[in-house]
Amino acid sequence: MVVFNSVAIVGVGLIGGSLALSAREHGMVKKIVGIDADPDTIERANSRHVIDWGTTDLQEGVRDADLVVVATPVRSITPLISDLAPYVRPDAVITDVGSVKKEIVDAVESLPGVDIGFVGGHPIAGTENSGVEAAFPGLFAGRKCVLTPTGRTPKRALRNVSDMWQSLGADVIHMDAAAHDSVFGAVSHLPHYVAFALVSCIDLLSSSEDNLFSFSAGGLKDFTRIAGSDPTMWTDIALMNRSNILSCIDRYRESLTRLRTLIESGDAESLHTALADIRAVRHTRIG
Amino acid sequence: MVVFNSVAIVGVGLIGGSLALSAREHGMVKKIVGIDADPDTIERANSRHVIDWGTTDLQEGVRDADLVVVATPVRSITPLISDLAPYVRPDAVITDVGSVKKEIVDAVESLPGVDIGFVGGHPIAGTENSGVEAAFPGLFAGRKCVLTPTGRTPKRALRNVSDMWQSLGADVIHMDAAAHDSVFGAVSHLPHYVAFALVSCIDLLSSSEDNLFSFSAGGLKDFTRIAGSDPTMWTDIALMNRSNILSCIDRYRESLTRLRTLIESGDAESLHTALADIRAVRHTRIG
Repeated sequence: MVVFNSVAIVGVGLIGGSLALSAREHGMVKKIVGIDADPDTIERANSRHVIDWGTTDLQEGVRDADLVVVATPVRSITPLISDLAPYVRPDAVITDVGSVKKEIVDAVESLPGVDIGFVGGHPIAGTENSGVEAAFPGLFAGRKCVLTPTGRTPKRALRNVSDMWQSLGADVIHMDAAAHDSVFGAVSHLPHYVAFALVSCIDLLSSSEDNLFSFSAGGLKDFTRIAGSDPTMWTDIALMNRSNILSCIDRYRESLTRLRTLIESGDAESLHTALADIRAVRHTRIG
Repeated sequence: MVVFNSVAIVGVGLIGGSLALSAREHGMVKKIVGIDADPDTIERANSRHVIDWGTTDLQEGVRDADLVVVATPVRSITPLISDLAPYVRPDAVITDVGSVKKEIVDAVESLPGVDIGFVGGHPIAGTENSGVEAAFPGLFAGRKCVLTPTGRTPKRALRNVSDMWQSLGADVIHMDAAAHDSVFGAVSHLPHYVAFALVSCIDLLSSSEDNLFSFSAGGLKDFTRIAGSDPTMWTDIALMNRSNILSCIDRYRESLTRLRTLIESGDAESLHTALADIRAVRHTRIG
């Protein structure tokens, strides 16, 4: 197992905090430094013993780290790596946990005058809750973690980051960054915007006297929960994976229109066949 | 508490079976007769002690009942009530559990030459599983049950059916049948077709080598579960509540298009505001 002397976690929220708790639980790190723009977050992370010490000063925080994990909202990852890169140790490994990869990996690899050991990463884990209070050490156990190395990724950096996630119980997968964004545009980003739109629609159909949510049963409750996800995170993801998401929404609208046409046609047999085929996906694709 | 001497349950599936188990558990019925077109279902309901005795013969099954509950797929409810009505005791109360109400209530109330004590009903309960094996007595506890009486509903019938559901722990609500179909078209039917379309879309985006479902995280898993619902039930509902569902799908497409336009615009602030407003619905509408 890889053991780090000092891990700097930039952004001590659900993911960063859970990574800290899990790394400590697995004896994988001697010291954990938390870096966050919000001093209150640092204080709360300290008082919950999520980090050994914390600072709002990025340069100070990363100086001694042999591993830097950037776990901030996805649009801030590239600027932060650009800011911290000149101050890390020459042998430091840098990784991130952003839900979008292509734009980050391209930008970091073309930072001028910087030669850093960077590996793009995305643990497929999260909850609707955010913040360090929601962090827990088991968040990554049994979950996939995608790494997106390129021809320029140092082998040692890739090995260390890969070992780290495996030690935390994650199932590490290597993917091309563009392929990652296409796949997760479909299986993660699209479902969220579909859910946001549904909750918005039911809200618009409700009136002040007639709150439709008071009648919500199983199905709608799941959508409402998903649509309660962090607006900043889902704004960032929309803008950073925009073309994939727009194309997924278009494909989705086609599927919905096909279903609408079948319903409108009143053709019970064809509609039943379509719904049975969709139900069967559980067995053919999921098993 | 109302106590029935003999309850006939037509259609011994998840809802009918759970009703039988719950009614017995609450000491609300002396004898439970199960009627099902499938002799195998009768046998399984018998062997699980869900019913006291069963038959595939509708006329025989309903003859002695003081309460008849029709719990079959929603498109078969009206024809079955039409078939059984001439054979029930004159004081028998008849109700159903169909997810669509207007068409059933109108049709039953205009059955020629029949004057029966009918109350339309819809317990807001269910799981993705179906069949008598999935039945359990606590299914209705704490759930809403909508009844849709009209000016022609006998008061005694309404009182008995209302008492029954309350005794099983349900929260009974009276609604106009058309209002019921409009509300549940939005909060229950729409989310199901939205989920069916999403699973269909992800299936079409997958290829034989690249199964996108293997990357599915939280959000998509909820959709996949919902889209695993019974195709017959959701074909019936689509056709019986067609105009409400089509109009809900249209309103939903407008919400999705608005969100797509915001994503395409790249206007982070407006997108964030929209997503934050949607997230806030949890507090303003759900509390």
